[in-house]
Amino acid sequence: MSLLTVGTVAFDDVQTPFGRAEKIVGGAATYIALSASYYTDDIKIVSVVGDDFPKETLSMMENRGIDLEGLQIKEGEKSFFWAGKYHDNMNERDTLDTQLNVLADFDPVLPKSYQQADYLMLGNLTPSIQKQVIEQMAKRPKLVGMDTMNFWMDTAMESLVDVLKLVDVLLINDEEARQLSGEYSLVKAAALIHKMGPKIIVVKKGEHGALLFQGDQVFFAPALPLAEVFDPTGAGDTFAGGFMGYMASTDDLSFENMKRAVIYGSAMASFCVEKFGIERITELSEDEITERIVRFVQLVNFDAKLKV
Amino acid sequence: MSLLTVGTVAFDDVQTPFGRAEKIVGGAATYIALSASYYTDDIKIVSVVGDDFPKETLSMMENRGIDLEGLQIKEGEKSFFWAGKYHDNMNERDTLDTQLNVLADFDPVLPKSYQQADYLMLGNLTPSIQKQVIEQMAKRPKLVGMDTMNFWMDTAMESLVDVLKLVDVLLINDEEARQLSGEYSLVKAAALIHKMGPKIIVVKKGEHGALLFQGDQVFFAPALPLAEVFDPTGAGDTFAGGFMGYMASTDDLSFENMKRAVIYGSAMASFCVEKFGIERITELSEDEITERIVRFVQLVNFDAKLKV
Repeated sequence: MSLLTVGTVAFDDVQTPFGRAEKIVGGAATYIALSASYYTDDIKIVSVVGDDFPKETLSMMENRGIDLEGLQIKEGEKSFFWAGKYHDNMNERDTLDTQLNVLADFDPVLPKSYQQADYLMLGNLTPSIQKQVIEQMAKRPKLVGMDTMNFWMDTAMESLVDVLKLVDVLLINDEEARQLSGEYSLVKAAALIHKMGPKIIVVKKGEHGALLFQGDQVFFAPALPLAEVFDPTGAGDTFAGGFMGYMASTDDLSFENMKRAVIYGSAMASFCVEKFGIERITELSEDEITERIVRFVQLVNFDAKLKV
Repeated sequence: MSLLTVGTVAFDDVQTPFGRAEKIVGGAATYIALSASYYTDDIKIVSVVGDDFPKETLSMMENRGIDLEGLQIKEGEKSFFWAGKYHDNMNERDTLDTQLNVLADFDPVLPKSYQQADYLMLGNLTPSIQKQVIEQMAKRPKLVGMDTMNFWMDTAMESLVDVLKLVDVLLINDEEARQLSGEYSLVKAAALIHKMGPKIIVVKKGEHGALLFQGDQVFFAPALPLAEVFDPTGAGDTFAGGFMGYMASTDDLSFENMKRAVIYGSAMASFCVEKFGIERITELSEDEITERIVRFVQLVNFDAKLKV
C-alpha cells in the first residue's frame, strides 16, 4: 500500500557530547520516509526545500523508492534549518537556532497521484498545514498518523485540536501527551486524547520505550538498552516511519499487527541514534533489521509458568 | 527454601497528592517479608523496633509465616521513623524527617535457626550492618540480594564497596546505578557494577519498569501502566521481596527463572502503590496475583512474524 508523508526536509546542526555535525540533512519527512522505505517501496513526500538542498540526497531518496513529485524546490531560497545541543544525559536538548526560510510560506500541493494514498503520516508541522494535506486527499486514507510537539500546543492549540479530530493514530512523546491532556498518568492522558479524536495513541518515551493504547488495550514496547546513544535527533520520526511503513506494507489494522508495527518502529529508532543524522538509516541491511527484531523479542520474552 | 531478610521495621509518615497517612507501619524488611510471603512460607526477619510498634502488625506478620525470632524489641525505646512528601509527579519525594531511634545502635544478632538460611536479602541499611549479617551466616547462602541508596554512596562508600564484593544480586534504582558507577548509560553502569562484585544487577526504573543484567544477557520487565499511583512508598522493597521470595520458592538460579522473578516482583510492586503503606500487600489473593501476571504477559506479548 502507498504511504504519503508530509513534514520538513531540512538541514540540522547537531551538537552532542560526542561531537558536532554542522549542516547535515534532517527533517521529519526525511526520517519518516527513509525509515518507512525498509518496509514499503511506495512512499510519497509532500514538502519544500530551497535550492541549497543537496541533489545527491534527493537521488538517494529516489533510489530508495521515495517519490519526490510533491517536494517543492524553491529557486533562490534556503531550506529550513534547525540547530540544537543535547545535554550530557541525551534526554534533553536546547534549540539554539531555527530558521524557517522556505517553510515560512509553505503551501502544500498534492500531485494527483498522491491523492489516492492509502496511508498518511503527518510529520510534526504547523497543524493548519497538516489539515490542508488531509483536505486534499481524494479519499479518506485507511490510516492517518500524526506527530506534533509542545510548540504547537503553546501557539496553535485551537487548530491542533481541529486536526486531531481527523486523525487515527497520534504518535507523541510522554511530555507532549501530558501537556496535551493535562494529565500526568499516561493511562489517563491516553483516554483523554482518545476523546479528542485519535482512537490509537502511541506514547514515545525515548530510552524508556513506547506505549500503544487502543480502547482498553495497551501494549508496551521497550527501547533497546544501548551502551551509547550517539545522536537522538530524528529518533521519533524514524519510529513513526517504521510504524507507518510496516502498517502500509502489511495493510492489517488489527491491534496484534499494530503491536508489531510499534516494535518495528522501535527497532528503526534504535538504529537511528547510533550515528549522526540520517547516516545509519540509509545503510541498513535486511539481516541487520531482522537481527535487531530478534533482540527485541529476547529482551521481553519470558515464560510466566502460570498454573504449573 | 528459607529466605532471611534484614532491614528496617518502622513507622512512616507519608504525604502524597491523595492525602496523608500519619505514623503508619513501614520499613524495608516489612515490605520485603510481606511481599515474599506470597511465594514462600519460610521467611525470617532480622531487625529492631521499639515497644511502640503495634503488636497486631507483628501477629499479622507471624500469621503470614514470617519468623520474628530475630526481631529485637527494645523496651522504652522508639521505632525508626521516616516522614516524606511526594511531588505531584510521584516520581520525586522530599524527606521531611528521619528519626533513627532504636536504629542508632542496632546490633543485628542472628538466631541459630537463621544462620542456615538458603536465600538472603539485605534491605537498604548501613552497609556495615549488612556485612555483619552476611558474616554471621553459618554457610554461604545460595543467593545474596542487596538494596542500597544514594545516602550510603555519599557517606559510607568504602564500606558499601566492601559489602558489594559479597553480594550476588544488587537491586537498585536507575539514579543509584548511575551514581554508583559514574556512568549514565545503564548498560555501562551494569557492566561496571558487575566488576564491583554482583554478577546480577537489577535496575528498578519505577514507572518505566526494570532491567535485569547478567553478563551479556539483558531482560526488560515493564511496569504496569496505572491510572493512579496512590503511594509509591515501599514499592522498591516490595519488588525485592517478590523477586527474592520467588527465587527462594523455586530454588532455580537460571536466567530464565530470574526473568520470572523480576516479573513477579514487578507485579507485587504494582499492587503496593495502589494504597497507602503496606495495606494492599497484606490482603492479596492468589487469583489477584495470577490475574496481574497475566496482564504483564499481555502487556509485552507480541508475535514478531519474522521470515513469514
